Amino acid sequence: MKAITYQGPSEVAVEDVEEPTIQEPTDVIVDTRVSGLCGSDLHIYHGDTAGVEPGDTIGHELVGTVREVGDRISHVEEGDRVVASFQAPCGECGACQRGAFNGCVDLLVFGHGLAFGSLNGAQAETVRVPRAELTLRTIPENVSDEEALFAGDVLAAAYTGVRPWLEPGSDVVVVGAGPVGLLALEVASALGAAGTFAIDLDPDRARIAQDRGHVAPDPGERDPVSAVMDATGGEGAPLVVEAVGGEGQALESAFELVAPGGHVVALGVPTTYGFEYPWLQAFTQGVSLTSTLANVPLWIDEILALQSAGRLEASWLVSHRMALDEGPKAYELFEEHEALKVVFDTF
Amino acid sequence: MKAITYQGPSEVAVEDVEEPTIQEPTDVIVDTRVSGLCGSDLHIYHGDTAGVEPGDTIGHELVGTVREVGDRISHVEEGDRVVASFQAPCGECGACQRGAFNGCVDLLVFGHGLAFGSLNGAQAETVRVPRAELTLRTIPENVSDEEALFAGDVLAAAYTGVRPWLEPGSDVVVVGAGPVGLLALEVASALGAAGTFAIDLDPDRARIAQDRGHVAPDPGERDPVSAVMDATGGEGAPLVVEAVGGEGQALESAFELVAPGGHVVALGVPTTYGFEYPWLQAFTQGVSLTSTLANVPLWIDEILALQSAGRLEASWLVSHRMALDEGPKAYELFEEHEALKVVFDTF
Amino acid sequence: MKAITYQGPSEVAVEDVEEPTIQEPTDVIVDTRVSGLCGSDLHIYHGDTAGVEPGDTIGHELVGTVREVGDRISHVEEGDRVVASFQAPCGECGACQRGAFNGCVDLLVFGHGLAFGSLNGAQAETVRVPRAELTLRTIPENVSDEEALFAGDVLAAAYTGVRPWLEPGSDVVVVGAGPVGLLALEVASALGAAGTFAIDLDPDRARIAQDRGHVAPDPGERDPVSAVMDATGGEGAPLVVEAVGGEGQALESAFELVAPGGHVVALGVPTTYGFEYPWLQAFTQGVSLTSTLANVPLWIDEILALQSAGRLEASWLVSHRMALDEGPKAYELFEEHEALKVVFDTF
Amino acid sequence: MKAITYQGPSEVAVEDVEEPTIQEPTDVIVDTRVSGLCGSDLHIYHGDTAGVEPGDTIGHELVGTVREVGDRISHVEEGDRVVASFQAPCGECGACQRGAFNGCVDLLVFGHGLAFGSLNGAQAETVRVPRAELTLRTIPENVSDEEALFAGDVLAAAYTGVRPWLEPGSDVVVVGAGPVGLLALEVASALGAAGTFAIDLDPDRARIAQDRGHVAPDPGERDPVSAVMDATGGEGAPLVVEAVGGEGQALESAFELVAPGGHVVALGVPTTYGFEYPWLQAFTQGVSLTSTLANVPLWIDEILALQSAGRLEASWLVSHRMALDEGPKAYELFEEHEALKVVFDTF
Repeated sequence: MKAITYQGPSEVAVEDVEEPTIQEPTDVIVDTRVSGLCGSDLHIYHGDTAGVEPGDTIGHELVGTVREVGDRISHVEEGDRVVASFQAPCGECGACQRGAFNGCVDLLVFGHGLAFGSLNGAQAETVRVPRAELTLRTIPENVSDEEALFAGDVLAAAYTGVRPWLEPGSDVVVVGAGPVGLLALEVASALGAAGTFAIDLDPDRARIAQDRGHVAPDPGERDPVSAVMDATGGEGAPLVVEAVGGEGQALESAFELVAPGGHVVALGVPTTYGFEYPWLQAFTQGVSLTSTLANVPLWIDEILALQSAGRLEASWLVSHRMALDEGPKAYELFEEHEALKVVFDTF
Repeated sequence: MKAITYQGPSEVAVEDVEEPTIQEPTDVIVDTRVSGLCGSDLHIYHGDTAGVEPGDTIGHELVGTVREVGDRISHVEEGDRVVASFQAPCGECGACQRGAFNGCVDLLVFGHGLAFGSLNGAQAETVRVPRAELTLRTIPENVSDEEALFAGDVLAAAYTGVRPWLEPGSDVVVVGAGPVGLLALEVASALGAAGTFAIDLDPDRARIAQDRGHVAPDPGERDPVSAVMDATGGEGAPLVVEAVGGEGQALESAFELVAPGGHVVALGVPTTYGFEYPWLQAFTQGVSLTSTLANVPLWIDEILALQSAGRLEASWLVSHRMALDEGPKAYELFEEHEALKVVFDTF
Repeated sequence: MKAITYQGPSEVAVEDVEEPTIQEPTDVIVDTRVSGLCGSDLHIYHGDTAGVEPGDTIGHELVGTVREVGDRISHVEEGDRVVASFQAPCGECGACQRGAFNGCVDLLVFGHGLAFGSLNGAQAETVRVPRAELTLRTIPENVSDEEALFAGDVLAAAYTGVRPWLEPGSDVVVVGAGPVGLLALEVASALGAAGTFAIDLDPDRARIAQDRGHVAPDPGERDPVSAVMDATGGEGAPLVVEAVGGEGQALESAFELVAPGGHVVALGVPTTYGFEYPWLQAFTQGVSLTSTLANVPLWIDEILALQSAGRLEASWLVSHRMALDEGPKAYELFEEHEALKVVFDTF
Repeated sequence: MKAITYQGPSEVAVEDVEEPTIQEPTDVIVDTRVSGLCGSDLHIYHGDTAGVEPGDTIGHELVGTVREVGDRISHVEEGDRVVASFQAPCGECGACQRGAFNGCVDLLVFGHGLAFGSLNGAQAETVRVPRAELTLRTIPENVSDEEALFAGDVLAAAYTGVRPWLEPGSDVVVVGAGPVGLLALEVASALGAAGTFAIDLDPDRARIAQDRGHVAPDPGERDPVSAVMDATGGEGAPLVVEAVGGEGQALESAFELVAPGGHVVALGVPTTYGFEYPWLQAFTQGVSLTSTLANVPLWIDEILALQSAGRLEASWLVSHRMALDEGPKAYELFEEHEALKVVFDTF
């Protein structure tokens, strides 16, 4: 079968690889219908993910059709249309028992190399899905493949950052209007936020946020942080979602934008170990900070229900639909910021 | 009347000062029954609190009897036995409207100088209490003066750090077994924690925690952090309360001790602006961090109700009961760590 | 000034009455901009409200402009555009202290006679608003008079029935598609419900619900209860809101429609003292039942924020806009079900 | 093996019956260490439980040692000391998916006849435990067999009635001081209630509640309902737990005792289909009512953790420890109210 494989820094290929088979009674084999290319795939593309070796299949976003089911799996069956959580937690450790699946001590992730269980990648014609009871969900009939694809990764990240902290009727600010940030705004709207504000230094991204009905100051006109502070009466918002990661500049901005007693949620992937936390400010203002990966297994049922009810849409983010064979080109476009979101849809 | 006044670094005096009078219709004048000496008074004693000038009255813990009531106050009357919140929030800003009184943009604090409204201190025979509707509570008959004194400051700090985050049946670790840390353990027990663990490098403080029924490894025997990790099955606890402050070493330990998906609450007063936050660890484990002052007005009613029901005790912490005249001696003892908690009780 | 007065069963008049004046330092005098005619006014119209005497002014929905402010009121001032809560709780009893303002032991209601404090009615040119700190809110600039009018009564009832119980991503059924029921569906949508379903035996009301995007079976085609059971996979919904009251038939239907572990909220005004509660069913299914008046002071800030953000609209319900002089005609239309909602808007 | 069997109204026997074996891959075979005799066994004893036939084994409280494990069970293994939930939910229906296991549409219960899956009884030397992933838990080392026995049934019922509704620092009243009611008081104390009050018309039971530190008026001295109303300042409590069932008189008292805005939880087993619910009172006071079976699988982990930490004790309730052979005598004593709680402990 065909799959996209990592070849080395800034190089991927489409290769013929062996088809996966059931290895554990909790596995399910899925024939891919669509798979996605996500911001965090770029870390692998850059050669920054230790343990991903040349020849490894990659990709972690997957919607497909069930081909074969392990002996201990009963909630899905052959022929079901399913979405996979990008992360496969063990279900048994203390974190999993408390529902903190993203903090699982033995987390597997598709196509992320040795450190995450040497799983196969999802940018492939067929995928082995482990721990299927936690990772696979059937998709409601009226939810499209592309919409469902977001539920297993990017939209779940956004949901994880908003759902536990949002008080209906209060404002939400998002720092970073990439896919996760934009979807965090959509989640906030769907769950009863009052004002929804976006900050991005890229005017194109600010404009996308505006087009979706959010308040997003044009960074060419004035400093967007102070513009949002003014728009919230000088107080900032009780919930600020950071969706950039990196070295932490966006996280610094988040602390400028959070109201006393409020909450900062850092969803962006950090590229440093630490961050200079403004302790004294946080202490005198009673501010909370949560840094977190998506918790897909915890929230995916709610997300699919909201998608099925037509209250949460994500596929408007898709800028490019490409064939799996176009994998190398897709990574290039994505790398060069010419694509907001790529979906591989011809399997 | 007599009051303890700041004279300069490491020097306080007992002086005759003018009696306070009603200045605003929301003021209440209270004759002191007991007042306390608290860890944060040491910052003033050291001369570290900008805006506290020689001659200023100090102290911020107060239980007394109402002498006179402003025109707009109706919830207390002359003769009532009352406890004051050490902090007096405005009640009108966004933070106050959301119940985050500790994040009030115009917070007043007794005896803390210009930055906190130049209020009189509570280590005095009579005290003007501003914004009394939020700051004063009558004390249930069966709660002693000394117990109530804790409700307005130290016990409220402990409660603020535990109450919103504790899940019944789960473990709690406290780093730093001073008054706030010890009371955080007591609050955790009273509200349904399973195991309660204390870490302190001072064997005497560890022993106090043990005597109160908590698990507190002797720091002379082995590293207490690893001892607590072992005692929690290697996982740490879902809630870790830091009660040291300073430069942040205790807060670092707290991050070693928190379980994936868990919460660190920093109650200690920082002496630096920043802290090197372990971002990558927090991100991969979905850990939250809240730094916060006590939120007395939010929690004091629950605390008084628990005290009245006999479920929460704090006055066992009092190591010294002294006369107001002994103020200079009290500060010395406290400075030299010979007193765990001093109460001025002869007015 | 002019006001609508009760004259006897099925008879109201527009009369000249004395202008109200400040009586307590917590009063505010408001010049009316719009007032409403609400379903519960019909109880008075029918002569069923003990203590409402001929000549009493009536009506309880009010938006206006502040004319005069009592000495102890500082959150609004002359000229402010304000909305009043139809209910004025004392703020001091145990229920108020716990935020259960609708359970206040000394509740006042505009135009509801002796049992509710003999307050003046809101269908009048000028109204005395008592306990204004709890009852009056300034209206955000971009919220119209008519929208705000709903925030003080009908929309707050709907919000009280949905907000505390709704889990995002789950279904909500409303029994009774009058103004409160229809707004409960709107609140459910705004706060993240998945499917929203309405049941009404009147095909016109079912059609209104459909037009607003909810699922509302045509009662002429099949039994709407079984239609909704089918649409929810035979399980019913975790939240069922009853908005009819009366003798309890709608409440019986609500128990047919609630899923195991779910919640029934009864918002309709009962006309009997008791209801035959299906105890054994509730016990084996773990079902909860809350009967409740609106809790306006608790929720009105969130509601106004959502209105200001454009996420919650109610004025589409207004079927008739009339002058105060047309009061008698308005009550007749409303009585004959020819008007869904009447607003008096020329003052 | 030996087991207690139902023989007909008021008649049980100890008989030799066939040993159970694994029937489903989700089964576990458990050798009994202790089993209990519970109030609801009397319904069977009286011949009131349809579908329990002469010769059926009975009993539903079980602590034992794992003998054999089905193919799909991995969380327990041979030799583990375990406690069983008396109820075995399917884990797949809508109610189970929402965590409302007690509302499962396909609930199995040990020894409760055809309507609950014709399971074997737990008053037997060996028991087949179905759906073991949800129903079985290993017991912490420092929790005794008898303590753990309560976690699977009576204590879980009490916990279900208190845990979701209790606000720390508020009062709790229990109507009916039998085993469930007494344990509800213990749970309330352990989780931070302020005052805990018991009402029982039997002075012996009131005395037991007093001995455990709760306020329980002597019914011989004055009406206990009015005594508790006085003790709560005339307001009643925000949480009232009913633990009698039957015809509903205790539930009527619960509504007299609940404060406005409060919650009544009915834990007693009703013997009628309906109850005359005081709708108008509930509506004007915003009162909630939940009737519910225990939800053991949801709460048992928290309960075991609290037991292990020494914060929740139940075995003081055991009045009689008997051999399985004494089954007939045990049922007689229990029927005649001479035993508060019987444990069969020699297997």
